[in-house]
Amino acid sequence: MKIGILGTGIVGSTIGSKLVELGHEVKMGSRSRNNEKAIEWVKSVGSDRATQGNFAEATSFGELIFNCTSGANSLEALRQAGGVNLQGKILIDVANPLDFSKGMPPTLSVCNTDSLGEQIQREFPQTKVVKALNTMNCKIMVNPRLVRGEHDVFLCGNDFEAKTRVTGILKNWFGWTEVIDLGDISAAKGMEMVLPLWLSLLGKYQNPNFNFKIARGF
Amino acid sequence: MKIGILGTGIVGSTIGSKLVELGHEVKMGSRSRNNEKAIEWVKSVGSDRATQGNFAEATSFGELIFNCTSGANSLEALRQAGGVNLQGKILIDVANPLDFSKGMPPTLSVCNTDSLGEQIQREFPQTKVVKALNTMNCKIMVNPRLVRGEHDVFLCGNDFEAKTRVTGILKNWFGWTEVIDLGDISAAKGMEMVLPLWLSLLGKYQNPNFNFKIARGF
Repeated sequence: MKIGILGTGIVGSTIGSKLVELGHEVKMGSRSRNNEKAIEWVKSVGSDRATQGNFAEATSFGELIFNCTSGANSLEALRQAGGVNLQGKILIDVANPLDFSKGMPPTLSVCNTDSLGEQIQREFPQTKVVKALNTMNCKIMVNPRLVRGEHDVFLCGNDFEAKTRVTGILKNWFGWTEVIDLGDISAAKGMEMVLPLWLSLLGKYQNPNFNFKIARGF
Repeated sequence: MKIGILGTGIVGSTIGSKLVELGHEVKMGSRSRNNEKAIEWVKSVGSDRATQGNFAEATSFGELIFNCTSGANSLEALRQAGGVNLQGKILIDVANPLDFSKGMPPTLSVCNTDSLGEQIQREFPQTKVVKALNTMNCKIMVNPRLVRGEHDVFLCGNDFEAKTRVTGILKNWFGWTEVIDLGDISAAKGMEMVLPLWLSLLGKYQNPNFNFKIARGF
């Protein structure tokens, strides 16, 4: 499948590399056509299935899009990607609206009454936004076996068929066994608001190889 | 031990009943001395170790205090309890700052840059506030075996010895095996901000018998 990855950070490059490894064609998108980190990623992957371009080119290329930009820049990146290029496509929104401007630990630039996932869905109503994978380190996103035992990935979104397809991607491509559908895109609030707890746990463990599991008595 | 429980709702009565069952003397505090729900609780427990009074009486009575008031009312309840009565004591803050005024699901009345736990600690600096137990249904708080397998209770606070004592209470009185210390009281932000995710899960499962587990790869 042709996939567009928006964002050149560790999340985008980790997911992009995994997708190329799985045989997909991946175009990494960034603000400018010749972003150094994107060029470096293409080189490091060393496959003609890995290419790079600007946000619009990567989005136009992909049948499926991953938003791996930093949350503070996501809406602007998606505007550059272009509503026409995003139209009708599934956008897997992995981003967290972390605001580092007030020092560490970061706060959220949107929360409680709104979320980044909802903002994206509102601004791009013709796009099937599925929030997923934002509650863990990126190495775990594509390799859940880095964490022992059962643990969960959450998703939410307004389009049921899109969520079914993303569930399949998470299970069949990335190896997840537990995918918890939290409902429509409004559940992105809860998914993004676990970040402060995640950051406390990272501070405690000094190791990002952990994830949430919902233990049940029923 | 003599314990004060602030709040007459399901959380206060569940914890209070468990503590009486364990042999402790419990005074349930509420706004007025003869609160109907508190009187009902005392009757239902049917032990002379269960009594009721106003917030100040329950707090003066207790060597240890549980804040089980609704988050919207916690600060006012603690003011009525009185800084002098709270002085030097451990206050286990179980409350969540849920705001139901804008409809369902509730939002948080404080989050992101502050938390209820921190507000309480700031207003009562002579009290050892330990945030704990707020991330699960109250039946699970005092009976973790309602949920299968391993799962976790978080706590945070500024006083190390108070946290050690609360950890002992959680383990020895309530039966917890996994108590995760998240650090100082600023971690109350993360503990309170998981509530929206918890509410999404409650909506999905229509059953409150679930809890968070931190699965690890190290």
